[in-house]
Amino acid sequence: MIRLAILGSTGSIGESALEVVRRHPDRFRVTALSANRRIAALAAQVREFSPAVAVIADDGVGGVPDSGGATHWARGRSALVELAGRDDVDVVVNALVGAAGLGPTLLALETGKRLALANKESLVAGGSLVLAAARRGGGELIPVDSEHSAILQCMRGSGARDVARLILTASGGPFRGWSREELWDVQPSQALRHPTWDMGSKITIDSATLANKALEVIEGHFLFGIEYERIEAVVHPQSIVHSFVEFVDGSLLAQVGDPNMELPILYALTYPGRAEDGALRTFDPVASSPLTFEKVDHGAFPLYGLGTGAGARGGLAPAAFNAANEVAVEAFLGEKIRFPEMAEVVARALETAPATEPGGVKEVFEADREARRVAREVSEQLQREGSSRKG
Amino acid sequence: MIRLAILGSTGSIGESALEVVRRHPDRFRVTALSANRRIAALAAQVREFSPAVAVIADDGVGGVPDSGGATHWARGRSALVELAGRDDVDVVVNALVGAAGLGPTLLALETGKRLALANKESLVAGGSLVLAAARRGGGELIPVDSEHSAILQCMRGSGARDVARLILTASGGPFRGWSREELWDVQPSQALRHPTWDMGSKITIDSATLANKALEVIEGHFLFGIEYERIEAVVHPQSIVHSFVEFVDGSLLAQVGDPNMELPILYALTYPGRAEDGALRTFDPVASSPLTFEKVDHGAFPLYGLGTGAGARGGLAPAAFNAANEVAVEAFLGEKIRFPEMAEVVARALETAPATEPGGVKEVFEADREARRVAREVSEQLQREGSSRKG
Repeated sequence: MIRLAILGSTGSIGESALEVVRRHPDRFRVTALSANRRIAALAAQVREFSPAVAVIADDGVGGVPDSGGATHWARGRSALVELAGRDDVDVVVNALVGAAGLGPTLLALETGKRLALANKESLVAGGSLVLAAARRGGGELIPVDSEHSAILQCMRGSGARDVARLILTASGGPFRGWSREELWDVQPSQALRHPTWDMGSKITIDSATLANKALEVIEGHFLFGIEYERIEAVVHPQSIVHSFVEFVDGSLLAQVGDPNMELPILYALTYPGRAEDGALRTFDPVASSPLTFEKVDHGAFPLYGLGTGAGARGGLAPAAFNAANEVAVEAFLGEKIRFPEMAEVVARALETAPATEPGGVKEVFEADREARRVAREVSEQLQREGSSRKG
Repeated sequence: MIRLAILGSTGSIGESALEVVRRHPDRFRVTALSANRRIAALAAQVREFSPAVAVIADDGVGGVPDSGGATHWARGRSALVELAGRDDVDVVVNALVGAAGLGPTLLALETGKRLALANKESLVAGGSLVLAAARRGGGELIPVDSEHSAILQCMRGSGARDVARLILTASGGPFRGWSREELWDVQPSQALRHPTWDMGSKITIDSATLANKALEVIEGHFLFGIEYERIEAVVHPQSIVHSFVEFVDGSLLAQVGDPNMELPILYALTYPGRAEDGALRTFDPVASSPLTFEKVDHGAFPLYGLGTGAGARGGLAPAAFNAANEVAVEAFLGEKIRFPEMAEVVARALETAPATEPGGVKEVFEADREARRVAREVSEQLQREGSSRKG
């Protein structure tokens, strides 16, 4: 029986993880759950799965239930991080959104656990720290998102030296084929309508800007030890091919299937084995036909190039990219800036980002804070200019 | 340095194998070559590769060069078979066409060699004997055709119990989408024009009738130990996805690349490793787009169902299918019977085929002969009926 801590259990990935647990009660048991603010949803999960502990991460949320029965309730950021280090947990599913995921990631790996990592920002903001934590503590890092799970499956039984190139697929989001000019009038509600994947709002916007794919390129670099010049993205609107690995002899493997996050979650929990799961056996090549591939439009979606460029620059640049992008997405969702202005915010914040390697988490958070500060300033400036244009 | 015997070296697969050797002179050396009748072509290969021995398999061919220099020349079927057992050979590439491939296959495996198997008929006609020879002699059976190489690559690091389904792709041949009625007037020259693969004429016709895919389903059954009800074919006109493996958790891996037989040949020679080969790194997903998939049309291409049915029936039925199909293809290429009549010839020959397991090669050859006899009778009968219809 594999004992799970699911951090971010009321989000999209968290709920998919619990659905996997529901279908495999013989394999998995839930020991710990956490949500940021959604008490009612977490309480329902607690009633169903009876974890040893449940945490509401946001200190400002009132009405956290009294502990009692099988489940101990706690509150706050440090209670959240502690879940990842518990002795009664075998696998930590880190489905947190944003840079807040880094702390639990480090603790899970330092305490020798398997980390099923859906939180992109852990590796993006603190990649070298995360790898060092895994080496130090003997923890095991298994990706949960569909692209890196695909690469892990394709690389099974092969080493990094057999790999010529990783090709990550990108759905292209709702604005695939749009020009930079057409993107000017995009509303948040349009950007939140993703054609193939049902995800949280931050990730959905990142998918619409291709910032998401840049984050995944950076993750891929750290997860598989492949240099940036050997990682590319290709637009694949159907989201059936989840990524390709090209080997040195010219052969490629692709992992393929209907878009469903439960599959990479299940694989992360059972790797290197596989669990029989009839509910996930839905793929029909004829029904999925045709599969198409297009080049990334760097002009219309500059956040992809900004992000991969920050990755190649290295050091704290990816942390700054990630932080500035979070601010830019918030500003766009708050209707303060226009869709194409997100890239402008991020580009400006990257100008001052240090490319030195972080010595520790503190420096990552400093770079994060500084990038956010600049990004907020730029957003407010753009907002003022926008208002004056309207006025 | 890996020492190769390439049987059928003047055919399409044989020439591709030599092209691979040409590009990797540091890895491979040619010890033995054979051709059926093409002396001039074989002599040119002998001059280039200086093998220890060269064999012309057809006893009736005159003008075989005198032995001399580095290369010993020999003639006849038994000289051909002996190549597979030589001590100075590490890998036997069996690129023979037809049931003649079975003898060298058995000897290579019995003498503990790696067998890079392109000859479909070995496994189809004598599957259980081939597996027994490998067990007895410790030989290693590695498929060379693109579909099974794809499956081998996708299954790397997994066992048969992880596999839910094999999906072999079929180009569909030049008559994809044609009705049974339209196929009536197909001429051999039309059938020999394959849309994506450049192959020998027997295999090209088999590809046009989908008999080829049935042979591959039978091979897949023996190579990977998967039951027939878990092996399917799907038509994929672009020949980019070379096959899929579906695992029990619903995930699929596909091996992908531009159609080029050099890749599966190189993989069979280097498995489980891979050799760097820039000449084979040609794949571009955007240039390959779109990839489409269609159902097999069992009505128009009944040889697929006849062949897989013979596989499921087992015993000597696949041997009979294969033999009758060889006769039917010859009769069609000789303009004795019509394209759709090939299935009729095979169906009639299968009616009398025994489903008992062969005790040895002798019984395989008897079943082969008997199926050929019936198939020739039926072909002649159909030819007479055809002539009288014309007249």
